Amino acid sequence: MADVLASLRSLMSSHSPPLHALLVPSEDYHQSEYVSARDKRRQFVSGFTGSAGLALITMKEALLWTDGRYFLQATQQLSDQWKLMRIGEDPAVEIWMADNFPEDAAVGIDPWCISIDTAQRWEHAFAKKGQKLVQTKTNLVDEAWKNRPPLEANPVVIHPLEFSGRSVADKLSDLRGKLTQEKACGIIVTALDEVAWLYNVRGTDVSYNPVVHSFAIVTTSSAFYYVDKRKLSIEVRTYFQDNGIEIKEYGDVITDVSLLASYQLGTPSLSGEEQNGEVKGAESTNGGCNVIWADPGACSYALYTKLKSDKVILKQSPIALAKALKNPVELDGLRNAHIRDGAAVVQYLVWLDNQMQQIYGASGYFSERETKSQGVPNEGEKLTEVTVSDKLESFRASKEHFRGLSFPTISSVGPNAAIIHYGPQPESCAELNPDNIYLFDSGAQYLDGTTDITRTVHFGTPSAHEKACYTAVLKGHINLGNARFPNGTNGHALDILARIPLWKDGLDYRHGTGHGIGSYLNVHEGPHLISFRPQARNVPLQASMTVTDEPGYYEDGNFGIRLENVLVVKNADTKFNFGDKGYLSFEHITWAPYQKKLINPTLLTPGEVDWLNNYHAKCRDILMPYLENPEMEWLKLATEPINA
Amino acid sequence: MADVLASLRSLMSSHSPPLHALLVPSEDYHQSEYVSARDKRRQFVSGFTGSAGLALITMKEALLWTDGRYFLQATQQLSDQWKLMRIGEDPAVEIWMADNFPEDAAVGIDPWCISIDTAQRWEHAFAKKGQKLVQTKTNLVDEAWKNRPPLEANPVVIHPLEFSGRSVADKLSDLRGKLTQEKACGIIVTALDEVAWLYNVRGTDVSYNPVVHSFAIVTTSSAFYYVDKRKLSIEVRTYFQDNGIEIKEYGDVITDVSLLASYQLGTPSLSGEEQNGEVKGAESTNGGCNVIWADPGACSYALYTKLKSDKVILKQSPIALAKALKNPVELDGLRNAHIRDGAAVVQYLVWLDNQMQQIYGASGYFSERETKSQGVPNEGEKLTEVTVSDKLESFRASKEHFRGLSFPTISSVGPNAAIIHYGPQPESCAELNPDNIYLFDSGAQYLDGTTDITRTVHFGTPSAHEKACYTAVLKGHINLGNARFPNGTNGHALDILARIPLWKDGLDYRHGTGHGIGSYLNVHEGPHLISFRPQARNVPLQASMTVTDEPGYYEDGNFGIRLENVLVVKNADTKFNFGDKGYLSFEHITWAPYQKKLINPTLLTPGEVDWLNNYHAKCRDILMPYLENPEMEWLKLATEPINA
Repeated sequence: MADVLASLRSLMSSHSPPLHALLVPSEDYHQSEYVSARDKRRQFVSGFTGSAGLALITMKEALLWTDGRYFLQATQQLSDQWKLMRIGEDPAVEIWMADNFPEDAAVGIDPWCISIDTAQRWEHAFAKKGQKLVQTKTNLVDEAWKNRPPLEANPVVIHPLEFSGRSVADKLSDLRGKLTQEKACGIIVTALDEVAWLYNVRGTDVSYNPVVHSFAIVTTSSAFYYVDKRKLSIEVRTYFQDNGIEIKEYGDVITDVSLLASYQLGTPSLSGEEQNGEVKGAESTNGGCNVIWADPGACSYALYTKLKSDKVILKQSPIALAKALKNPVELDGLRNAHIRDGAAVVQYLVWLDNQMQQIYGASGYFSERETKSQGVPNEGEKLTEVTVSDKLESFRASKEHFRGLSFPTISSVGPNAAIIHYGPQPESCAELNPDNIYLFDSGAQYLDGTTDITRTVHFGTPSAHEKACYTAVLKGHINLGNARFPNGTNGHALDILARIPLWKDGLDYRHGTGHGIGSYLNVHEGPHLISFRPQARNVPLQASMTVTDEPGYYEDGNFGIRLENVLVVKNADTKFNFGDKGYLSFEHITWAPYQKKLINPTLLTPGEVDWLNNYHAKCRDILMPYLENPEMEWLKLATEPINA
Repeated sequence: MADVLASLRSLMSSHSPPLHALLVPSEDYHQSEYVSARDKRRQFVSGFTGSAGLALITMKEALLWTDGRYFLQATQQLSDQWKLMRIGEDPAVEIWMADNFPEDAAVGIDPWCISIDTAQRWEHAFAKKGQKLVQTKTNLVDEAWKNRPPLEANPVVIHPLEFSGRSVADKLSDLRGKLTQEKACGIIVTALDEVAWLYNVRGTDVSYNPVVHSFAIVTTSSAFYYVDKRKLSIEVRTYFQDNGIEIKEYGDVITDVSLLASYQLGTPSLSGEEQNGEVKGAESTNGGCNVIWADPGACSYALYTKLKSDKVILKQSPIALAKALKNPVELDGLRNAHIRDGAAVVQYLVWLDNQMQQIYGASGYFSERETKSQGVPNEGEKLTEVTVSDKLESFRASKEHFRGLSFPTISSVGPNAAIIHYGPQPESCAELNPDNIYLFDSGAQYLDGTTDITRTVHFGTPSAHEKACYTAVLKGHINLGNARFPNGTNGHALDILARIPLWKDGLDYRHGTGHGIGSYLNVHEGPHLISFRPQARNVPLQASMTVTDEPGYYEDGNFGIRLENVLVVKNADTKFNFGDKGYLSFEHITWAPYQKKLINPTLLTPGEVDWLNNYHAKCRDILMPYLENPEMEWLKLATEPINA
């Protein structure tokens, strides 16, 4: 690690201009949340493996900014050479630079790894003290990185119409309509899931996210796909050709953005005169369009600097919303994927219930009697957070259309369940036991849909306090899932519905309540969100969006509880329609029982009891055909109605 | 009216520079919501009496902008010479100016009648087309206004410590602490209720609001009161003197703001050298302070232009929050005032119940049997929206400490109840009848507190639909009033709690859910608010604030329902305190029964039934000592528990 910092400092000195500091963000060229191994530059230089962080390297120091989820982990992973900067407590990077460096300091950044928004914010902040954000011509980390994982040519796979539900021609036509509305001649599509969605293709370039490292540019008359051509079979090449999409090498995107900026990309071939230098009357030759559309949160600064700043429209990509509004085929696929996924979860619970009773003498999923002492299990028998999560994966893997997990499984016992972003490691993870709550938050990628579910269970005797907390979380989960609301309502307004039952007892949780979910795509998907924080991009919930409903409660050092279903926003069948706005409600598409043993029914309203019994009855009807005995008997018991 | 426009146009022509247009806003020199008769300039020029509107007069046209509440009324009241501009549908004034006038157009405004915020926004917008906002030296409307109501010298009254609860010395000391925090040498206090609160005085200069036309300037060492000195008795003058407050004429505020801007007001007397021209080292002589504090939403542009723009802090006045946080004496006073007020409301309901049965053969407050035909009542017997509201006022007027109403009573029958801001007029108001819902929203000023209550009743046979709607509104009212929430939560987040039961049926209401209420001061008081609109000034609710809880439902042409109580925010006695934030809840201080006949109990949860029965039991206990028979018997019946 010391070598890496020394190499980087040497590269910073010999850079023109010499750099006083180098910024290394977590993001790849596409500003992704999850990145491939060879794009984990911030992890490589710092040793810190968390998903969010920013490294700053100077000639004398090395600093890493991260947020509250990761303070403990960063302390453990960072070497002596690194200083942890706690977001919210320590000064932000631009303030630290102003306090510690002279007026003419140069701060290097690879402009490919930073969004337009962030770059402009930093440039502005640095400029206040006369400091400068310098775009490096190469990525200095890549130069210093011996043994950097090589580029892999993972195949691009066509995502067929039976799963995507909309043709590329249809999506392009819609997109071009949006371009026309904004008088835009073209759009640069950089978010990996947006490119995959637009062109109906998938890949395996990033773990958990079935995407391909690629860009798209769409103009009013042309469409381009920038990708390592080795990834394309003849069939896939033909597919793109048939869809009128020109395939170009991944690296060609930068020169094509320059052409796009002068309206020379994807326009009908120009006359000789027009090709000489400046294009005359380019605007009129483009049907009145006069700007290029770039998403300031997703497009890299490298591409932005090729555009003319007065001819750019910086606005969220219209593909984000189009992708979030699932079509009927996607909705059917998601419903089916969630049924198979629910069956796998029930199979897992039945297996785990059995194992806990046999190995640990637990009273089991249904009973609250005392644990029978069994002595210590053999090493080979032991159930750990990792071994049981592998078993869960195997149940999912047996299902039709399975393509992998949608994120690293959170499988957590007792105090570990209170760590919201816990990721168990084989060498250090905890053993299961009948005296602690067990929380698992997991999901899979199926060809017809992406899943994400959390259940919290206890195989011994839960305390009255644990039951009260579980019941409060369940009430919040039901309260949000049962909401009806007029069109125009955003997730920020709804968030309180999941918290109110917890607040009643002075309880709360420090995370948002829901996120969109992709259709065999990323498990976290915008542009909407259910969060207690007001969103700058205040996108209202709309019919056919997906969103999770996942309140929780976490007691440090003791236990954690979270319940999560995926919901689909639908038009509500209200008696009236005040203001002609149209009203919306939610359809639950996740199917797996809540553990009745953990519910204190005296805390539920009759309406909540009805909802629970009704949901459980549907669980039984829907999942039964996917199960065999003894699983069927188990599910029957698990879904018997409760009395208020 | 034609004469007025002609006079104004003549004054505009002879103005230097000549004005192409003249803006006449609704506000007075203090940016008040309610203004005195002689300050109703916009009403005088346009004939439109609504509370909100903006007039623009050009050489050829006269336009009036107002919002949706007033479209109908404005259409009726504006003459042919005026054009109604509908806010939200028609272009805003700055856009209309840009579209209809040349680049060098001059738009006149009296800088006293416009806030800093609005003036800067308009200046900026006009400048885009090279147009100019011109501050007139005099108010042209006043010049054109023959028979303008004269200045009245209404006496200033001391609001004693037994009601105000905090001494002026204490309030000034706190305020100076805030000035020090912001390095401010002084603050200009322009909002009438802030001046009244700060100096513990009241008056009768504005209907419904017990305030005095006055300003205050407070520096780190001095305090000034700008007022028509004729309003001050010897006793009041002594009071000010004893509190170290210098009394100055109302008009002196402008010259004193100029002195304040150069740190020459309220500083220890300066040496001869320093008094010559620029004050040397003024900042250091003011204990390190270097700015003047002005509230951009309340302070007039006239005063602002006397300040140095780089030496001003534009920030909400700290008095707004200090005034909203009621002290224990004010809280006790508010509780007591609401008890007397509740007794008056019950007396009114008993009287009205009797009258409706006797005059109209109504089945009455408790019974749902059919109305007995009584024939048409004599003219002298008739109950109208105005005569019954006068009776309500008389019940209130009989109570201790009564000082008048806190706003014009909304007394509305059937379809009129659907007009949210309905104000019945003697000549045109409706007659009561046993077949329609009756809504009254009213309040009073008492020396110990201000009240605001809405109840909706039916003296005949309500329809199942009316009952369902009433019950949904009641559920929202209970749901919000029962909330517990962590410190830091603002009213925007809570608003949805009052709407969710209505949304369930596709119902809603087009107004906010709650406002702060003064302590023998304005009935509408910030800085907090419970509203579906996110607030720019996002002030969280805090313990000891007051806030109303008033959801409704309005069916155009049929009926309206609203239920309103005043709540006090208090620390909640939660079992836990997650995140050490502290949790809050509400205390209802309004006491008057809900009409059980209008409730469909099958729509209530057991918790809601409990709440209702508990509230009614308290109503009975609390109000009984203030009533006599047969009122006591009536209240007993009205507060009998219901069964779920």
